[in-house]
Amino acid sequence: MAKKPSIPKGTRDFSPIEVARRNYIIQTIKKHFEIYGFQPIETPSFENSETLMGKYGDEGDRLIFKILNSGDYFGKFTQDIYDLSEFRNLLEQKLQDFCTEIDDMLGNDIRNKAIELPDYLQNDSVINIFDSNFAYFTGSFEEHLKQIYSIAISDHKQNILSWSFKAISRFRYRDDNASEFVSDDVYRFDFSEFPFDGLYVRIIAENLTSKELTPHISEKALRYDLTVPFARYVVMHQNEIDFPFKRYQIQPVWRADRPQKGRFREFYQCDADVVGSNSLLQEVELVQLYDAVFTDLKLGGTTIKLNNRKILSGIAEVIGAKHLLVDFTVALDKLDKIGEEKVKGEMQAKGISEVAIAKAAPLFAMSGSSLEQLAQLKLLLAASEIGMHGVSELEEIINTVEDIGLKTADLQVDVTLARGLNYYTGAIFEVSAPKGVSMGSIGGGGRYDDLTGIFGLKDVSGIGISFGLDRIYLVLEELGLFPERLDQSIDVLCINFGEKEGLASLKLVGKLREKGIKAEVYPTSTKMQKQMKYANNRKVPYVVLIGEQELSNQEFVVKNMDTGQQETYSLNKHEAFVLSLRA
Amino acid sequence: MAKKPSIPKGTRDFSPIEVARRNYIIQTIKKHFEIYGFQPIETPSFENSETLMGKYGDEGDRLIFKILNSGDYFGKFTQDIYDLSEFRNLLEQKLQDFCTEIDDMLGNDIRNKAIELPDYLQNDSVINIFDSNFAYFTGSFEEHLKQIYSIAISDHKQNILSWSFKAISRFRYRDDNASEFVSDDVYRFDFSEFPFDGLYVRIIAENLTSKELTPHISEKALRYDLTVPFARYVVMHQNEIDFPFKRYQIQPVWRADRPQKGRFREFYQCDADVVGSNSLLQEVELVQLYDAVFTDLKLGGTTIKLNNRKILSGIAEVIGAKHLLVDFTVALDKLDKIGEEKVKGEMQAKGISEVAIAKAAPLFAMSGSSLEQLAQLKLLLAASEIGMHGVSELEEIINTVEDIGLKTADLQVDVTLARGLNYYTGAIFEVSAPKGVSMGSIGGGGRYDDLTGIFGLKDVSGIGISFGLDRIYLVLEELGLFPERLDQSIDVLCINFGEKEGLASLKLVGKLREKGIKAEVYPTSTKMQKQMKYANNRKVPYVVLIGEQELSNQEFVVKNMDTGQQETYSLNKHEAFVLSLRA
Repeated sequence: MAKKPSIPKGTRDFSPIEVARRNYIIQTIKKHFEIYGFQPIETPSFENSETLMGKYGDEGDRLIFKILNSGDYFGKFTQDIYDLSEFRNLLEQKLQDFCTEIDDMLGNDIRNKAIELPDYLQNDSVINIFDSNFAYFTGSFEEHLKQIYSIAISDHKQNILSWSFKAISRFRYRDDNASEFVSDDVYRFDFSEFPFDGLYVRIIAENLTSKELTPHISEKALRYDLTVPFARYVVMHQNEIDFPFKRYQIQPVWRADRPQKGRFREFYQCDADVVGSNSLLQEVELVQLYDAVFTDLKLGGTTIKLNNRKILSGIAEVIGAKHLLVDFTVALDKLDKIGEEKVKGEMQAKGISEVAIAKAAPLFAMSGSSLEQLAQLKLLLAASEIGMHGVSELEEIINTVEDIGLKTADLQVDVTLARGLNYYTGAIFEVSAPKGVSMGSIGGGGRYDDLTGIFGLKDVSGIGISFGLDRIYLVLEELGLFPERLDQSIDVLCINFGEKEGLASLKLVGKLREKGIKAEVYPTSTKMQKQMKYANNRKVPYVVLIGEQELSNQEFVVKNMDTGQQETYSLNKHEAFVLSLRA
Repeated sequence: MAKKPSIPKGTRDFSPIEVARRNYIIQTIKKHFEIYGFQPIETPSFENSETLMGKYGDEGDRLIFKILNSGDYFGKFTQDIYDLSEFRNLLEQKLQDFCTEIDDMLGNDIRNKAIELPDYLQNDSVINIFDSNFAYFTGSFEEHLKQIYSIAISDHKQNILSWSFKAISRFRYRDDNASEFVSDDVYRFDFSEFPFDGLYVRIIAENLTSKELTPHISEKALRYDLTVPFARYVVMHQNEIDFPFKRYQIQPVWRADRPQKGRFREFYQCDADVVGSNSLLQEVELVQLYDAVFTDLKLGGTTIKLNNRKILSGIAEVIGAKHLLVDFTVALDKLDKIGEEKVKGEMQAKGISEVAIAKAAPLFAMSGSSLEQLAQLKLLLAASEIGMHGVSELEEIINTVEDIGLKTADLQVDVTLARGLNYYTGAIFEVSAPKGVSMGSIGGGGRYDDLTGIFGLKDVSGIGISFGLDRIYLVLEELGLFPERLDQSIDVLCINFGEKEGLASLKLVGKLREKGIKAEVYPTSTKMQKQMKYANNRKVPYVVLIGEQELSNQEFVVKNMDTGQQETYSLNKHEAFVLSLRA
């Protein structure tokens, strides 16, 4: 194979340094998830298609990667259709109707009339019935047709349906002894009357659509997010789970999206959710959790934006656009991107009246601290019960968080924040990177009242947040926040000077490894220069040299690759070197 | 959806305790991989199909999970075939040949001869040419046929090919004015002469096999192991890699195998490989690495079995069965399972002569220490250069390992060990669980000389080992070797007595979390009994109580759930509690 190997678009190889950096972020997130009492679960990479399909809208269904069934999936598909007894029964019925119709047309007695067999039917078994391609009927037409049909079924399982269709559409007849056919009109069977959207017919016509075919040849699909599998997990394991259940999950997901900068077809999600408690303490804790993780990553200055679905519902209510809630919030969500005028224009275009938009004016002028904004919202929403409920929830969260205090993050009310509006029912979160870094949100989440309902477990309230691993990676990279130690994959390299020296090195390395020091011996006693180049490329901080001289002195020399300084230790006293490494 | 959700067969959900136990094994393996100087890489979950297919034999190809192409993959497939210009050209050529043949048959001038149009061709555009279903030729036959063909192409892109096939197979002719057809023989076009194995024709007949269809509707496949993706990675990134390249990779792989006890369709592989060095020091280090990992997992008494492909080749050579090497070793590999007599029987059945089997007799009686066995092998293999080379390699590895010493594992020569014989070229490893545990191998590996050759990078020697996560898990479980701490997902739970008390608890918990202690507040001030039940179920060692009384005293009570003892601390002095936790 001379062809240069490649990987599928939208996927990535991760080099050692990239893995180390990604793991640094993942381990930091994981540490705080656990400190906050979340427990890890893992779910399979692929789920039954019915678990995933229909949960993410039409667009989502399209972006779910489907796995082809194993084995002879296509043969099974055609066989499945053949086996559909309903389909067979209908076919029998149609044949019956057809025969009746023919009988009506030709008179009940069609003895001594001939039927032209189409070449599809010209196999030996069939010809035997008629003794000719132009068969003369000796029994009733119906009787003969049924005979043909039954032979066809036993002889040609796979092809019978298409074959039968063709057969019954192409019978022509003529009177016995007549040299002309009674009519040139071929009797046409109307396929469109058939049920199953003419599925089988269309296979033959090759007009079967992919969407129709997929469920027949694929039963599994790759995980699209971690939320639906989590809901499925909770319902399946509800009897083993102690609620409230605080779970975290850090696993890859797959989407057949068009790859772009920062958008991949395989990427990790890092989710923490609590189900089975509607206490607002959860909202407070999740704000604290965001703060703890980003502070630990040295990423100060993040903004945690907070909104509440009930406030959005309240606004739509008081301005008289309750029925246009989604259009209203989708437009409002764009305020910081396209500005006030364009947002208003979009609202108008969606049918929100000028009066309503005028009533919403305070939203465009919201300013001040979160508590000041809440005061403005109270005025605006005084007439809406649900709106005031949302304000009071926000107020409690903000007051509690301010009482406890955050380390480096800033909590801010943002009434334009909508995210997956149809999904969230209470709090909505989104985290922005520090000012000056051009990056979308690096985290988000919210409360949803009925996640597990789709799998039959009602009334389990949940709330969750997610960290955007790839974006956090890009932010830390841009700001140079990855610890330097991540670049260093090994602490000590022993240069290999030959068989005996190599063995001594291997023994020393064994002792260093016992102390948890990452160490290795260069595998062959090749040129010093090559070995040092390898040490430099791998950014080894200490190179150990045991040459002939050192071996005979039972010593080893340590070269500090940063300073160039060399120090000599006794081979029996490697602990002194270990201590210097730890200093 | 009332249907109870489920997961695909052969896959697993992992509960918090299972994740903790699996991570314990993975982290232990990872730690030693890194201490030994291996660097992590990660590759995408799916690869281009061409990267994987053909690398694992026919059986492997069958077990690879294929991912369905996105979008209108089936329409694209039928279009693709239509677009195949080679195919179209051939169709044109066949039409040409057909016309020539018809001309020969009917005489060059077919004016005033009629052709019966099959109903497939009875659309308006075609009928217009002939003015009748039974068309009279006014030009040459060829001319008309081409006209039909060009109309068909423009009118019926999708269906044209099948349509053309049908059309050209069904032309009949009769003389002008004659009421009878010249012949009842339908001119039969021989599809079997067509190239592409009659692919298109067979779609129509629904005999297209799944194996033929798959490459047209699937271009990606799930990773089947970590070795082939690693080879692909090395070739793709050869210019960024410093050789020798020591990489480790711990990721899931997928196989569409029949699920069984201990065999899953999604499972992790934990591999460490070195490429770019043929030094035997690598073999020594990998033996040490096995020993280090299993010792750290407290799994003493493992046996690391060692063989060398060259010894197997040498034996086959000296007994005169060089050409039957694979049959010979496959049979020999079963010695401990089926015994000497049956092995000999199988060898005979495979065509290995009695003389040869008699020569191999010493193999069945191999005993004693590794060095004693090597001595016996030297006698047996004296006449084989490659065999003696293998013995000398084994000897060097064993001597070096014995010189350095292993902690808890036992290194043992096992000449019956073959594993993936066609794959390995030097050392072959396999690790057995301690005696008394009924479990197959819990690890294995070996040296391969040309892994990257399949992707065009020749002469890169490599050696690798793998740890069997699922089996190691079962062994540790059976022997009760998982640390108890893994059962405990949280250190401290604060009982929630109400709003004010809950807030005080949240503040205390915040301070504990800063010290890295896993702590949480029960989210609602529900019944004490319910909260304690939750604490018990989650195996919380310490429960903290801040009730009204404690809050007014600025105190908190800690209950040791093991002993039942309670202790009171001042809220300002939580460090005392932290210290007691760490003690």
